[in-house]
Amino acid sequence: MREVLATYRLFDPKGAFEKKAEGIALGLTIGSWTDLPALEQEQLKQHKGRVVSIQESGRETEYGWEADIQIAYPAANFSADLPAILVTVFGKLSLDGAVQLIDLSFSEDLAGRFPGPKFGVAGIREKTGVYDRPLLMSIFKGVIGRDLAFMEKQLKAQIEGGIDIVKDDEILFDNPLTPFEERVKLGQRVIKESGRKALYAVNLSGRTSELKEKARRGVELGASAYLFNVFAYGLDVLQELAEDPDINVPIMAHPAVSGAFTSAPYHGFSTDLMLGKLVRTAGADFTLFPSPYGSVALERSAALKTAQMALDESVPFKPTFPVPSAGIHPGLVPVLFKDFGTDSIINAGGGVHGHPNGAQGGGRAFRQAIDAVIAGQAIADVDQEDLKMALQLWGSGK
Amino acid sequence: MREVLATYRLFDPKGAFEKKAEGIALGLTIGSWTDLPALEQEQLKQHKGRVVSIQESGRETEYGWEADIQIAYPAANFSADLPAILVTVFGKLSLDGAVQLIDLSFSEDLAGRFPGPKFGVAGIREKTGVYDRPLLMSIFKGVIGRDLAFMEKQLKAQIEGGIDIVKDDEILFDNPLTPFEERVKLGQRVIKESGRKALYAVNLSGRTSELKEKARRGVELGASAYLFNVFAYGLDVLQELAEDPDINVPIMAHPAVSGAFTSAPYHGFSTDLMLGKLVRTAGADFTLFPSPYGSVALERSAALKTAQMALDESVPFKPTFPVPSAGIHPGLVPVLFKDFGTDSIINAGGGVHGHPNGAQGGGRAFRQAIDAVIAGQAIADVDQEDLKMALQLWGSGK
Ligand SMILES: [Mg+2]
Ligand SMILES: [Mg+2]
Repeated sequence: MREVLATYRLFDPKGAFEKKAEGIALGLTIGSWTDLPALEQEQLKQHKGRVVSIQESGRETEYGWEADIQIAYPAANFSADLPAILVTVFGKLSLDGAVQLIDLSFSEDLAGRFPGPKFGVAGIREKTGVYDRPLLMSIFKGVIGRDLAFMEKQLKAQIEGGIDIVKDDEILFDNPLTPFEERVKLGQRVIKESGRKALYAVNLSGRTSELKEKARRGVELGASAYLFNVFAYGLDVLQELAEDPDINVPIMAHPAVSGAFTSAPYHGFSTDLMLGKLVRTAGADFTLFPSPYGSVALERSAALKTAQMALDESVPFKPTFPVPSAGIHPGLVPVLFKDFGTDSIINAGGGVHGHPNGAQGGGRAFRQAIDAVIAGQAIADVDQEDLKMALQLWGSGK
Repeated sequence: MREVLATYRLFDPKGAFEKKAEGIALGLTIGSWTDLPALEQEQLKQHKGRVVSIQESGRETEYGWEADIQIAYPAANFSADLPAILVTVFGKLSLDGAVQLIDLSFSEDLAGRFPGPKFGVAGIREKTGVYDRPLLMSIFKGVIGRDLAFMEKQLKAQIEGGIDIVKDDEILFDNPLTPFEERVKLGQRVIKESGRKALYAVNLSGRTSELKEKARRGVELGASAYLFNVFAYGLDVLQELAEDPDINVPIMAHPAVSGAFTSAPYHGFSTDLMLGKLVRTAGADFTLFPSPYGSVALERSAALKTAQMALDESVPFKPTFPVPSAGIHPGLVPVLFKDFGTDSIINAGGGVHGHPNGAQGGGRAFRQAIDAVIAGQAIADVDQEDLKMALQLWGSGK
């Protein structure tokens, strides 16, 4: 049966989960059941939501007892697009007090209506020529109000330092000093001159209806990747970009704004659903999410699960490259590798630019650490100046 | 100065708000300041965020002491669109732990870049011919899996009962039994035949890039209004619909999914900012938000403030019609009028369809209550059968 399976975390002071679950399954589909004549029940039963499972955790919270419940919604009830699915499973329900949507699964038929990433992990490895290690990414620093010469200098330094992917700051939009098209052309030229197979993810921004044309134009001018603040636009907007065959560069989903609906303990969406499974479903080639290290860390299991949802074969799309972000420095490479494995991207800002030898030194330090970890060597034993300086400055823990 | 003023509710265990506020103002704009050479400071100061005010509430929460802080962001830092503004003021910040965005104000210049409602309160009053009372709205009930004949019957009953605006269920999408265009044509015919100046808000749904064309086509076929699940698509998508001169019917913003980012006590957005000010800025003619009555009520001051933000002259757009929703029955009309005044819409589902005399009776009961309240009469004294039955069934309190 074509359906969506939604998993909710519910809270109820009385623990009356069966009643609550039935109320949701019915209320968010056909509305009435028991008082309908048999003939109408026959006609409507294919549209009726059904409770699949209820699992009480035994935990009591400030909102009551906790349970995870699964409800199946027939695909006949909605058009096969993410807005319709989200409105169906978490539309009015999101306004019903403490409740979280923690998972969504599509039947095979329904999943076939979604693109998933165009490139994914394999495609990005091919574009960067990097196969046997995590990739390394860094961000521009302090580019607001700066000109192209400033960005060029930073871009060159990062690429020379061995960074595989440089991304725009997500708060850099089209502006007179560094217009979108000029950044694209700059990237194309600097990367070509470097002789390296690096990517520069330019921030694709502006009015929604202009994004496609802008993205296509950028590809013509030599864009190698796009950064996209998906949650300021909509998952369906991302999906349309990912489905467009003329936008044939990888798209990087940034989590900006998503904290508004993934951070609360008893409301919103789970991080792994939104930043893992759903951005992958909609076609993001990379997904940035908060790392479990640093000062405002994402809870460890949530971070690991987000990466898992981005990669896991159980989700029927190409894998999306997981990018745990924030608070990353070279000393963390061993734990990053242990937690996230080879198919991940090590992403740093301050941990690259703040290196005593500048961004080149920061990039090199990270590459030295990555090489060591891949070779099974302790990073403290690496006799390389850049890495030694990084460990001295930032340590090797969290 | 062209700028956006963002008001945040912050929480800090140490109450170190000045430091925190400065960190935000700097970090979300130019990044560095004190270590910059004087010449660069001169160049960048027009881009620097600035702390405008800090107001500690004296309240201690589980996340620490609480304060409302205002930060100004120069408009030079972002393109004049809502995605860029939201990413700037609440992008990475939303991922920084407990923090809420509770208000956004645009300088006059910047506000001029946004459309506001095409029709607003005055335009809708003109279209419905209703000037001296709140309008009355109802929703279709149990339409999933039903055909056009079923919807026609319900539509007629509601319009005959005196409903001014009938809205689609927000979970009704394009489907073989009741396709979008057929619903539009049905509405046009039934309303015309009724001789009343009613509106039927059809759910505008589907893929983002198809919405405009669909909406224009619907207008050609006689659509009188659209329902739009803005939060499943994006505020900028709503704005593009509102800006389109060919989509010249009122647009009704539905709050579906918004609970994910307005319901939590220490995260997300305030309800009045998102469902009041921002949907108005983006061009919604009506805004539905949870009422302060009923089983899962929005906190009273939040509901009143949402309506205020929809109407207030301090927000430089036409006023958006506020529609407090959920748990509404005729007995609540006096308190609705007292709380929300004449420029509001009384919106009911069960409170119309559940009437012993059917939807016609429900509509009439509401109209009788509204007439009484406008005339300063107690609804319990009204000698009308429909209203009496409603009061008997649902009472006159919350
Ligand atoms: Mg960033
Ligand atoms: Mg509804």
